[in-house]
Amino acid sequence: MPRPKATIRLVEESEATGRVREIFADIKATKGIDFVPNFWRTLANYPPLLEDTWTRLKAVMAPGRLDALTKEMIALAVSATNGCAYCINSHTAAVKKLGLDDAGLGELWAVVSLFNSTNTLADAHQVEPDVLPPQ
Amino acid sequence: MPRPKATIRLVEESEATGRVREIFADIKATKGIDFVPNFWRTLANYPPLLEDTWTRLKAVMAPGRLDALTKEMIALAVSATNGCAYCINSHTAAVKKLGLDDAGLGELWAVVSLFNSTNTLADAHQVEPDVLPPQ
Amino acid sequence: MPRPKATIRLVEESEATGRVREIFADIKATKGIDFVPNFWRTLANYPPLLEDTWTRLKAVMAPGRLDALTKEMIALAVSATNGCAYCINSHTAAVKKLGLDDAGLGELWAVVSLFNSTNTLADAHQVEPDVLPPQ
Amino acid sequence: MPRPKATIRLVEESEATGRVREIFADIKATKGIDFVPNFWRTLANYPPLLEDTWTRLKAVMAPGRLDALTKEMIALAVSATNGCAYCINSHTAAVKKLGLDDAGLGELWAVVSLFNSTNTLADAHQVEPDVLPPQ
Amino acid sequence: MPRPKATIRLVEESEATGRVREIFADIKATKGIDFVPNFWRTLANYPPLLEDTWTRLKAVMAPGRLDALTKEMIALAVSATNGCAYCINSHTAAVKKLGLDDAGLGELWAVVSLFNSTNTLADAHQVEPDVLPPQ
Amino acid sequence: MPRPKATIRLVEESEATGRVREIFADIKATKGIDFVPNFWRTLANYPPLLEDTWTRLKAVMAPGRLDALTKEMIALAVSATNGCAYCINSHTAAVKKLGLDDAGLGELWAVVSLFNSTNTLADAHQVEPDVLPPQ
Repeated sequence: MPRPKATIRLVEESEATGRVREIFADIKATKGIDFVPNFWRTLANYPPLLEDTWTRLKAVMAPGRLDALTKEMIALAVSATNGCAYCINSHTAAVKKLGLDDAGLGELWAVVSLFNSTNTLADAHQVEPDVLPPQ
Repeated sequence: MPRPKATIRLVEESEATGRVREIFADIKATKGIDFVPNFWRTLANYPPLLEDTWTRLKAVMAPGRLDALTKEMIALAVSATNGCAYCINSHTAAVKKLGLDDAGLGELWAVVSLFNSTNTLADAHQVEPDVLPPQ
Repeated sequence: MPRPKATIRLVEESEATGRVREIFADIKATKGIDFVPNFWRTLANYPPLLEDTWTRLKAVMAPGRLDALTKEMIALAVSATNGCAYCINSHTAAVKKLGLDDAGLGELWAVVSLFNSTNTLADAHQVEPDVLPPQ
Repeated sequence: MPRPKATIRLVEESEATGRVREIFADIKATKGIDFVPNFWRTLANYPPLLEDTWTRLKAVMAPGRLDALTKEMIALAVSATNGCAYCINSHTAAVKKLGLDDAGLGELWAVVSLFNSTNTLADAHQVEPDVLPPQ
Repeated sequence: MPRPKATIRLVEESEATGRVREIFADIKATKGIDFVPNFWRTLANYPPLLEDTWTRLKAVMAPGRLDALTKEMIALAVSATNGCAYCINSHTAAVKKLGLDDAGLGELWAVVSLFNSTNTLADAHQVEPDVLPPQ
Repeated sequence: MPRPKATIRLVEESEATGRVREIFADIKATKGIDFVPNFWRTLANYPPLLEDTWTRLKAVMAPGRLDALTKEMIALAVSATNGCAYCINSHTAAVKKLGLDDAGLGELWAVVSLFNSTNTLADAHQVEPDVLPPQ
């Protein structure tokens, strides 16, 4: 018997109407892809949550002080630390699309794995923050 | 009564000898600071762990495909996701020293907080990875 | 080749004897279902852990100050925050059975995702608790 | 030497201007309190993040299918699971203000602690979701 | 102003009556100490949760296939991975009391920090379990 | 359509050359197995990360103050607490190979699940560490 695919059904693009239809179109246009990723099709079961999440993501990921690749690498570092399977797949594809090669990805993982290690060591010893001289 | 500062005592610089003394000197020289941070003074109770951790950190954080600031921002994103108090203090100081201003830090936190939110939403619905066309 | 289903075999209902058989019967009667969920079939490999876990769950989930649906929603919020796949599937089915509709589930996820986001922001800044006036 | 209070300074109410001043006033009015909690004073260093976070929190926490106390209990369950000190203090005060007594809080913690335990047991055995009959 | 010590008051030994008084006495006798640790004084605000938690801990930590020190080391490894400050302090004291010296503790931390690192690397690449030959 | 197996391809043993080939051989010899586990085949895409991770794991897991089974049990406790699927499968197989039987595994899980529960309870109440008499 197959593993259940999700705890709620995926909304088909063909059945989307109104605000959901508009957001689906905006997702495809903004990301330059021709399908609506499963994550957004799931959230479409709750239109206000879909709209709030997409609006926020679009604003937050727009390049500013940090460029698009840096933001995606941070998203990927967070997703790996949380062990979120869907998110790791999705953001790995995104950083590659933005030009990060295997050597760059290797450096990213070396940093992420190192600090998941040192975070535990600092917690393990309940190390107090260093008191720095006033700036 | 004071809150205990750590679960193990901090090794004083003045009492360090041999390999620990050399590593303490290398930490100060590499980071351009005139004190040994508490994290390393704690690890000095276990010289092989101190040496392994410092050697790895020094190699991993050296600029490569990713520059020093990008690596520190990733370290900070991981530390905040894990809620490691010492690490958050330490890496916040480091990204500021490398030139990230408050607006940049605000963008970093917006990205980190957004994906801690969407990670949970993806997990919550057990969304399956999108099957992408072969590259 | 198939993905391994579990790291230990599932005990069949037909082979259960003694205390395990009684607990299996109690699980089905208490939950009003006609099969023993995989979680309990796994724990049956360790009878004392099965008994302790089931006894505690039965006591904790009985309605008290908090009603059954509220308790299940809290269980689901915890499971999503931890990213536990089995638990998310199981508790999503439970809250639906207790009457939560899609709009209610959407509100639950909005709350859960929001606080996974603000938790990180509070940790990120090492915000000290507000000192409230004495009550 | 004192423990650093936060990794960034708290914005004083008296120095807030423009949009930050308006949001500070809205926070106090909405919550029925006469001070701005430290969390919001910290975010005021990044006005867009303050506005986005407050606007979302205000919308998400408004009573709907789920009432205000249920939403706060879920927020507290998430915060305890994540171990976020500030958030635990803040949401514990909130559920008490909304009428949850010590016996109710005890039930909440019994549920939260139970499922942090069973989540680990389900993960530990890599239990596959039960395949339920079609609804 | 002092940091709040806990979100709920600590029950004094002198005010404990009935079942709480008996459990406090059992905790001191079982652990061979002359005070009731703060954790248990906090849970005493919810007598059923105190009783359930203490009864389970006493049973689980009794030596069996695994000896007392091994069980405490596992408790400490879990606590450090979760970053639980109280628990780390408490279980560090316990493993020392049971005879683990600094070199042994250093090995424990090396293992704990290593696997917090490799766990992230395995999640990061969504590595599928190895299919082992049938046993 | 099949679930993607990993976010990066697995390096085949037959295509490995130079340092990667040597490490693959060392992994098989050290572990006494005749295949290279998927985890290491994934890391082989980043040779420096493969080398650093393997070298460290080999050193850390060598018996010292703690024996091999104790170290593997700690690795498994960490992996279950983090919910890392690959790691749980891998370390469960390892502790069995080192002689832990089902009753011993049941005790391990009882300890791990108990402390994931009490960690949350301690965090939930922001319990301050006990101030112990000087040793």
